[in-house]
Amino acid sequence: MPQKQLHLTAFMRPVSLHSGAWRYPGAYADANFNLAHLTSFIQKLESAKFDAFFMADHLAVMNMPIEALKRSHTITSFEPFTLLAALSAVTTKIGLAATASTTYEQPYHIARRFASLDHLSGGRAAWNIVTTGNPDSSKNFGQDEHMEHADRYKRAREFFDVVTGLWDSFADDAFIRDKESGIFFDPERMHTLNHKGDSLQVKGPLNIARPVQGWPVIVQAGQSEPGRQLAAETAEVVFCSPRDLAGSKALYADIKGRVRAAGRNPDHLKILPAAFVVVGDTAEDAQEKRLKLDSLVHYDTAIASLSVMLGTDARVFDPDQPIPENLPKTNASQTAQDGVVKLGKDEGLTVRQIAQRMGGYSGLAFVGTPEEIATEMQQWLDEEGADGFTVVFPFLPQGLDAVAEKLIPELQRRGLFRKDYEGATLREHLGLPRPGNQFFKESVL
Amino acid sequence: MPQKQLHLTAFMRPVSLHSGAWRYPGAYADANFNLAHLTSFIQKLESAKFDAFFMADHLAVMNMPIEALKRSHTITSFEPFTLLAALSAVTTKIGLAATASTTYEQPYHIARRFASLDHLSGGRAAWNIVTTGNPDSSKNFGQDEHMEHADRYKRAREFFDVVTGLWDSFADDAFIRDKESGIFFDPERMHTLNHKGDSLQVKGPLNIARPVQGWPVIVQAGQSEPGRQLAAETAEVVFCSPRDLAGSKALYADIKGRVRAAGRNPDHLKILPAAFVVVGDTAEDAQEKRLKLDSLVHYDTAIASLSVMLGTDARVFDPDQPIPENLPKTNASQTAQDGVVKLGKDEGLTVRQIAQRMGGYSGLAFVGTPEEIATEMQQWLDEEGADGFTVVFPFLPQGLDAVAEKLIPELQRRGLFRKDYEGATLREHLGLPRPGNQFFKESVL
Repeated sequence: MPQKQLHLTAFMRPVSLHSGAWRYPGAYADANFNLAHLTSFIQKLESAKFDAFFMADHLAVMNMPIEALKRSHTITSFEPFTLLAALSAVTTKIGLAATASTTYEQPYHIARRFASLDHLSGGRAAWNIVTTGNPDSSKNFGQDEHMEHADRYKRAREFFDVVTGLWDSFADDAFIRDKESGIFFDPERMHTLNHKGDSLQVKGPLNIARPVQGWPVIVQAGQSEPGRQLAAETAEVVFCSPRDLAGSKALYADIKGRVRAAGRNPDHLKILPAAFVVVGDTAEDAQEKRLKLDSLVHYDTAIASLSVMLGTDARVFDPDQPIPENLPKTNASQTAQDGVVKLGKDEGLTVRQIAQRMGGYSGLAFVGTPEEIATEMQQWLDEEGADGFTVVFPFLPQGLDAVAEKLIPELQRRGLFRKDYEGATLREHLGLPRPGNQFFKESVL
Repeated sequence: MPQKQLHLTAFMRPVSLHSGAWRYPGAYADANFNLAHLTSFIQKLESAKFDAFFMADHLAVMNMPIEALKRSHTITSFEPFTLLAALSAVTTKIGLAATASTTYEQPYHIARRFASLDHLSGGRAAWNIVTTGNPDSSKNFGQDEHMEHADRYKRAREFFDVVTGLWDSFADDAFIRDKESGIFFDPERMHTLNHKGDSLQVKGPLNIARPVQGWPVIVQAGQSEPGRQLAAETAEVVFCSPRDLAGSKALYADIKGRVRAAGRNPDHLKILPAAFVVVGDTAEDAQEKRLKLDSLVHYDTAIASLSVMLGTDARVFDPDQPIPENLPKTNASQTAQDGVVKLGKDEGLTVRQIAQRMGGYSGLAFVGTPEEIATEMQQWLDEEGADGFTVVFPFLPQGLDAVAEKLIPELQRRGLFRKDYEGATLREHLGLPRPGNQFFKESVL
């Protein structure tokens, strides 16, 4: 059996999820909001043959206390759709995944924009379906209260049906453009959706040809019960945040099982956990980089986060000593307390360093040499913990360059990652089929 | 006194408003929906030093009978915003004007997208504020009925205040990015809008830095009473459709007077009527091109349009004879009937040719040699009928090339049009000031 292949997307909004990233020595402080930098990043990722450039989104300033917010490089960001359209003109192969909300958007607009991006990019668009988690968003859209979780997912499911229905407004062969007869398109090959559902009423047809990929690739990030079910029914890529391989294998098995139960081929949904990747020349070098980066997180906000996590005021501990063994029993999760204590022991960290880890980036991380990281990634792939990863960079450009120039060649040497793009569209990079048109079965392209 | 300068924008969605354009011999049949063609058009317009590339928009398939619709090259178009973001990456100077609806959009989205386009393009964005005329749009956005005209304009005025308020969320100097202290921005230089009005409630702040131009340039196209008033209070460019110089002078005087009455400088609003421009090597050559183009309009739909205009069934007339002098008195406008009879006499047209003119493009047209057209344009400029024009092309690429390569050099020879861009932003091309930040008066950039 041939070696399974990793799929890699790059998490790029913000360009790093680590809150100290912009302060790292030599890092671009404005990397998240500088078109020239973003252009160089995507071109570097394309030369490294990444599957896609992935943009999260927020429909409000991040909901954090002002003392933390004023230290955050996320405060000013490009709107993902506009940026990806611009970047489509300076790239030719890499996929372009934009987040768009089903709660605060209209399906006619979303269908048009993704169809446009797919045409403009020659079939490289993906839609990351979110229901929007930040409750502050509602106040920017005329609503005092954020819609309830269950209602958001109900609307999301219907929204997906409407958008895909609108994408299928025209058969692939609808546009005749016969100068002689003067017939531009065949009205028999146009479908009017006439959707009337619980949350949405949309007549159609869409005023744009069917996307190059049929439908842009569907991405979904929810890990909740309704999120997993929505993904199983609709998604082709799942972005998730497991803490470790055991947790990821359970999630992987659950979602792939749901896909099978929904009558779909489980190979047609790729599970790509978020992974913070710090590449070093030696294991120590990588660890030092990470500790240096963590040290740039402001202590006041870091210790506040740790206090919440532990359920006790961590400011009373000596910041430069290990965390006390016998933490007071509190309402906080015992697992969280145990995790913090274990982290301190495993890596020999002080209270300050633990707090800064929690305030920097505390999710799944691969920190080491290219060889060590490649071995870990292969294990996740072979043990069905992942079909690849959504790579989170520690700081830019250096952290991204190290992945592109050191880790990717090692993955290629091991036959785990493509040496060149074999197809033209994002669906082809991901090994996903082009969906048929639900209204024009005989359509061929 | 130095010669006043023309401002020229290019009407590019659809790429030609003439319904026969795509059938013209040698024209690109898919010009309206082909990125490579659109890229060559905008680069040609930039080399000709046009102020801006202007995209109208429709939030539904055009509301025409299917017999006409199936002959229309407008059926598939890019969403303007996505296209302009992509084209921003292949141009450096030309302005990028996108239409966006205040009736079927949310101000937080609009403010973000235009701010993003302005940053991505280095200060070249313009927002054409429309309230959406096509009533079919409502059915694509969950509403059975299109909002009433007066309500649409009331919402538009408030929408403008919200969007400009969101653009002013940050002082120009808010972003400190001090790696040493870890302070990314100064919260004292961020403003939360907290708008609560009749139509809209929007909290803010926007999650993007203030646009390069302060505010993207504001364009308005309404000619109705509330449309003119909205323009006088908010617009910096007015797009309009007068029939002739006398009508345009009246409109020009009215709008400039309203601008003065609103306490604004009338030079800070540019009036750019739509003009269909057909350049020929001789006057006869230009006329022949136009007649050839008109002849490509399908007779059945053309004669139906003419019948509606005349208020009588024009199919009973001999298509190859002049129009009868004594048309039956009907409920149709006498002015419309007289205009049709006069057109037939002035140009010696048959019923068929008149019908095809009405079904092709019946608005203001400049048809002639570069010298003749330059003389007409100068007259409109000097007599205060216009500050320039929104150029509508007859067919592409030839009709656009003729404007860029023959008309523009003639205008430049006469000192009526720039030989090169003097500024970097669209505001600078148009001679418009950069608005101050309403919440941070002392802001300097």
